[in-house]
Amino acid sequence: MPTDPSPDMTGTEANPPGLASSVNALFESRIPAMHRLGIRIVELREGFVAGTAPIADNLNYQGSMYAGTLFGLGEALGGGLFVATFDLRRFTATVKDMQIRYRRPAMTDVRAEASLDASTIARIKREAEESGKTEFVLDAELTDTEGVVVAITHGTYQVRAL
Amino acid sequence: MPTDPSPDMTGTEANPPGLASSVNALFESRIPAMHRLGIRIVELREGFVAGTAPIADNLNYQGSMYAGTLFGLGEALGGGLFVATFDLRRFTATVKDMQIRYRRPAMTDVRAEASLDASTIARIKREAEESGKTEFVLDAELTDTEGVVVAITHGTYQVRAL
Repeated sequence: MPTDPSPDMTGTEANPPGLASSVNALFESRIPAMHRLGIRIVELREGFVAGTAPIADNLNYQGSMYAGTLFGLGEALGGGLFVATFDLRRFTATVKDMQIRYRRPAMTDVRAEASLDASTIARIKREAEESGKTEFVLDAELTDTEGVVVAITHGTYQVRAL
Repeated sequence: MPTDPSPDMTGTEANPPGLASSVNALFESRIPAMHRLGIRIVELREGFVAGTAPIADNLNYQGSMYAGTLFGLGEALGGGLFVATFDLRRFTATVKDMQIRYRRPAMTDVRAEASLDASTIARIKREAEESGKTEFVLDAELTDTEGVVVAITHGTYQVRAL
């Protein structure tokens, strides 16, 4: 057991224990192609998500990370935030469009982070309840292990009542 | 053996025999993560490329094709066209940015096509020779087996002398 438990393990209200693990288990069983790319959610709470992708098994012919894996990592963040924000028994989400700009070759494992502010979360929850659908836009930064930005993504996700 | 050989098998000048197969072999060995998604180039000649991705092993939690596989299919077309247009011993290519718009859930295998007109090919070959680098923009349409457009992609690729 870690001697210095992360916030995720202590299970505060803002960061339920095992939420990131639950999302990864969900991805593994329900979006296996994403899971096989090595994409994992590593931090997740309402309003904040971080994910990682390994350079191992994701090399391209230039020795950097495959463009599709970088895209998948950015895209997965929206799924994570959806799970952290909505009741999965009542709502579903899809990505509507997404743009990725590659800045530098990613030669290491990559981490991506994105957040939604409290007023945006309040708006999308209200819209989803009132009209059965809503959208949110997520901007993510993907960085290598030195903190250098290797790509940025800009995605629009649609949430609908089941 | 097929009784009605495709143009690719007859090996006209515009459509060398086995070029698509060569690209797939290259992808398999040099971008294995892409190959594992099931992305294949099925038609390739200078100025035209088509690729496919299977719904099998690419399902998401809504029973349609994983967003990352659709992206990867659109992105791969630029790599195919690069191989059909440039001498791999002298030039390399990377994707600079790419946008995908998801139109409808893809419930079947998906095919994507893109083309570059003769004047664009002439321009990028000239620029690559003269300045050692060039860019091309590729718009692709992704369709299901009924011909319905499930997504469109818009990508910018950079070619550089080695």
